[in-house]
Amino acid sequence: MPTASNAVHAYTLATPNGVAIASYLEELKERYPGFAYDFTRINIWKGTQKEDWFLKLNPNGRIPVLVDKSRGDFVVFESSAILLYLAQHYDKDFAFWFSPESDLNSYSEIVQWLFFAHGGIGPMQGQNNHFNHDAPEKIPYAQKRYTDETKRLYGVLNIRLNGREYLAGDGKGRYSLADLKSYPWVKIHPYASIETLDEFPHVKAWLERCVGREASVSGAGVAPFGNFLEE
Amino acid sequence: MPTASNAVHAYTLATPNGVAIASYLEELKERYPGFAYDFTRINIWKGTQKEDWFLKLNPNGRIPVLVDKSRGDFVVFESSAILLYLAQHYDKDFAFWFSPESDLNSYSEIVQWLFFAHGGIGPMQGQNNHFNHDAPEKIPYAQKRYTDETKRLYGVLNIRLNGREYLAGDGKGRYSLADLKSYPWVKIHPYASIETLDEFPHVKAWLERCVGREASVSGAGVAPFGNFLEE
Repeated sequence: MPTASNAVHAYTLATPNGVAIASYLEELKERYPGFAYDFTRINIWKGTQKEDWFLKLNPNGRIPVLVDKSRGDFVVFESSAILLYLAQHYDKDFAFWFSPESDLNSYSEIVQWLFFAHGGIGPMQGQNNHFNHDAPEKIPYAQKRYTDETKRLYGVLNIRLNGREYLAGDGKGRYSLADLKSYPWVKIHPYASIETLDEFPHVKAWLERCVGREASVSGAGVAPFGNFLEE
Repeated sequence: MPTASNAVHAYTLATPNGVAIASYLEELKERYPGFAYDFTRINIWKGTQKEDWFLKLNPNGRIPVLVDKSRGDFVVFESSAILLYLAQHYDKDFAFWFSPESDLNSYSEIVQWLFFAHGGIGPMQGQNNHFNHDAPEKIPYAQKRYTDETKRLYGVLNIRLNGREYLAGDGKGRYSLADLKSYPWVKIHPYASIETLDEFPHVKAWLERCVGREASVSGAGVAPFGNFLEE
């Protein structure tokens, strides 16, 4: 178990993927007394994630990255891989996932919805952000393409969440890695040119459940953009 | 174990993600006598994957989808989730993955490179295909953006494969789910406006190792486009 002197260390920033792992780290801290982590804030606008020392941790040059000092500085990159790693090593009570040995189908559901978010919502909403905010030229075709695709993906979540509270698990589901990965993206829907979630009522109610958690509130404050935006 | 009368059933087509799971199914068939699967070819140009019966299997309306008839018709979607599901249930000798219990770090490496491919290569090369082949208008900015990003991601693979044979595992690595997910995308690099892999020599050598496998050859022939393109 990583303790204060032997912590799990995150290289991160409060982007949606950064908030996903920060929220889980906060959940673990709350649930397992003694579990500790710390973090280094990475200035992605300055390109710190493309510096040699960072590329040695993650050749893809992206945050978040986790270094587990309690396990020989083992490095984990890709936000969803970090969530699964933390679950396997430090969430021994299955508080936020399901046992791959005794709860096989619910475990697979988590994996499926993690990949859905990781290959769908993240990259498509990321392109949406690019064409609506960062691209040097306005390209209506691309702006519309990625706003439409983000909406389509929210629509998939809405189908899944009809009659459920959370994405994975029997009955109404259990708050899990699958929700932790997705909710920080859906939370910033206005930035993705989606003003309200009114056409996705089940997503809207789910988002409120997710962001209302104590660990989501504190997780959102980990590695804030702060002065990086002014530098 | 799924047998001929009680098979794992794939709804699929020979796209890169379809070939990834077909190659693994072929590997399993070769390695584990008695393991059986069958499949239904899905015409994605006709929109079969958006029909009601398909959306009941996968609300995201995309191939591949797996239905495990030997486990109460349990449904798995997202190609990488299917690979991990097949590994956990039917690759008991860890022929193409690593034990999450006794080989924890190598197991995490597979998960990391699966998410890298699933959130990076797949979606970005997919956008590359769209803007270079399918979009109704030519948009040079977007064509260049996604060709550049596909190349950057191949560059990340090239760094990882320097001195290795495969993406995950100690030493030179072991042919695993991580390779199975990535190689069918890299294989179609000419379609992604990347004529040769000469600037990625380690990727080039790795691709030859992957496509040369017997199961990759037979996997590439599963659920071919065939007459769908002419309909």
